[in-house]
Amino acid sequence: MKDRVKNIFKNAVSKPDIILIKNSSEPFIDNNFFYTTGLHKGLFEGSIAILFPDGNIDIIVSELESETAKKADVNICVYKNQSEYSKILQQSISNSKNIGVNFKAITYNDFYNFNKKFSDLKFLDVSESFEKTRLVKDEIEINLIKKACNIVDKVVEKIPELLCENIKEYELAAEIDYLMQKNGADKAAFETISSFGKNTSEPHYSHGSTILKASDFVLCDFGACHKKYNSDITRTFVFGKTSEIQIEMYKTVLDAQGLAFENSKSGVKASDVHNIVDSFINSTKFKGRFIHSTGHSLGLSVHDGNARLSQFSNLILEENMVFTIEPGIYLPGFGGVRIEDDVLIKKNGIEILTKSSKQLIEI
Amino acid sequence: MKDRVKNIFKNAVSKPDIILIKNSSEPFIDNNFFYTTGLHKGLFEGSIAILFPDGNIDIIVSELESETAKKADVNICVYKNQSEYSKILQQSISNSKNIGVNFKAITYNDFYNFNKKFSDLKFLDVSESFEKTRLVKDEIEINLIKKACNIVDKVVEKIPELLCENIKEYELAAEIDYLMQKNGADKAAFETISSFGKNTSEPHYSHGSTILKASDFVLCDFGACHKKYNSDITRTFVFGKTSEIQIEMYKTVLDAQGLAFENSKSGVKASDVHNIVDSFINSTKFKGRFIHSTGHSLGLSVHDGNARLSQFSNLILEENMVFTIEPGIYLPGFGGVRIEDDVLIKKNGIEILTKSSKQLIEI
Repeated sequence: MKDRVKNIFKNAVSKPDIILIKNSSEPFIDNNFFYTTGLHKGLFEGSIAILFPDGNIDIIVSELESETAKKADVNICVYKNQSEYSKILQQSISNSKNIGVNFKAITYNDFYNFNKKFSDLKFLDVSESFEKTRLVKDEIEINLIKKACNIVDKVVEKIPELLCENIKEYELAAEIDYLMQKNGADKAAFETISSFGKNTSEPHYSHGSTILKASDFVLCDFGACHKKYNSDITRTFVFGKTSEIQIEMYKTVLDAQGLAFENSKSGVKASDVHNIVDSFINSTKFKGRFIHSTGHSLGLSVHDGNARLSQFSNLILEENMVFTIEPGIYLPGFGGVRIEDDVLIKKNGIEILTKSSKQLIEI
Repeated sequence: MKDRVKNIFKNAVSKPDIILIKNSSEPFIDNNFFYTTGLHKGLFEGSIAILFPDGNIDIIVSELESETAKKADVNICVYKNQSEYSKILQQSISNSKNIGVNFKAITYNDFYNFNKKFSDLKFLDVSESFEKTRLVKDEIEINLIKKACNIVDKVVEKIPELLCENIKEYELAAEIDYLMQKNGADKAAFETISSFGKNTSEPHYSHGSTILKASDFVLCDFGACHKKYNSDITRTFVFGKTSEIQIEMYKTVLDAQGLAFENSKSGVKASDVHNIVDSFINSTKFKGRFIHSTGHSLGLSVHDGNARLSQFSNLILEENMVFTIEPGIYLPGFGGVRIEDDVLIKKNGIEILTKSSKQLIEI
């Protein structure tokens, strides 16, 4: 993990002496705590990690997490109460003047308190360095993401046999999550989307009590979280006989995804990938019905490093970045189609990490 | 939901003209967005809610969430790009001078950008008002929590029959999560803790590949999330024959929980409840082995309103607050026992919301 810490310093424009990661209460936990320590268990609410330019890390944790913390190759300081906590923090940063902080993952309240307590220190934003460093995955990360992709692939292949008349959305979601965990996921990467019929037209719908009916679209968007690393896949099915418009929607989305695949490789602009997909869909009868970005970086967070394949992105794709590619078409009141796969950016193209089938199946 | 918004203004010491809730990217989402709008689906990354003293709410959301947002009784402004977003925001807050902000749930980055953009406005911290308001649950909330408790109760009763030689921790977690979802949970409230043997001595361990062996402690700590409201329960079992020390640990924890139950009611100090439990455990041979607080407020967040039954809490219990009561004893290298139930504070006592059995069972 020392290389990760060194890279964060290398990528930091503002050149801090040390970098301080501060977790607040759930859900305001900075994933970089786990990225830098390599820990993949524990909550670590209120915990602090102090990163040094030589790659070393001190962590300040409560007694509650001390057993879990021992699994990391870091210097652990355990506090029993607030005064011990303050004393340890004071000692740890006393030799530094310029403190790097992740402005995008610290609450204003925590920042305000640091600033008040250490008014002679200078706090520098290193959020972009964290984002930049995490966008390019190392081998350990790629292997964990591949494992997470492998889990969802196994689940996708089981979905057709799970679908039956009158199954409810939440029941299908339960089956999907169960299969993920039985296949090695620690948990679902996010609340599984299992939507039927017209609900499929809401990209961020999760699941309700809607009952599956003949000719419904079935949209399943889910991910496996394995040792904190995530996959993210979407498959759309039709339950029963397809209509012409359903086939047309599906084919258009699949073609759009193929275009994104063909055009993604190291050196390409993220915005170009999106614009190709968007222009293509806008050239069909579904003009204006692709209403989100083409994809997002994926890793320790499901939306990782704040990077998207979108119109306004300034990002240039690089080797060993991992993205989802997920075009969709949404017709409010009727339904939606989305097809999503996870890809690893290579020098001359991509490696598709999710390999499960995606032909339109009438079930 | 208008009463919730009015109460937030009533409880705000700083008297803002309007209150602004700003979500960042996952996981930096302010649950108060859902508390005030009553929405229980959607991600709403980047979305804004503007609360007015009369209880009305404007929300600013991307096209992606506009269908989902329509389920709330609020004024919806949909933006298509950043310039539309800025324009809508400008218009919405143009008549206000004092803007309430939840300092504990806004990232420093978002706050910094607001402050720069609206340098003539004054931003006031209303985090304590949100916390105070949310601690006391209304009828809708209590019913949702009861439903979430009902789900985990059903699951607890099934655990003994799930335990068998050689089952792995993660397999048991998968079964627990599946049963919760089949019984109506939208998802697990948090990563289910399913620990065996000496792993039970780590309070925040989740689950791994450890295999169940004879005479192991089995500690299951899990919660159901139902329409965003959570339950949180822990049961500890012994697989096979119990040892004397296991029985003693279990009995001590159960007695400690009973003491907490007896001493909890409206008007009592949260710290008193904890101190009674802590003193009791410290009077036994397990002195110093209760290493966390006695409980936490529960609701829309698992750790809700930042309120704990702990030594340093200033909170006075009030009617319609909901807390977990979860004493534990942890012997590193050997194992731990925790028993946790969710309770509703009443005028003269408590209502225990989780009703499943908790006698020490040798399975």
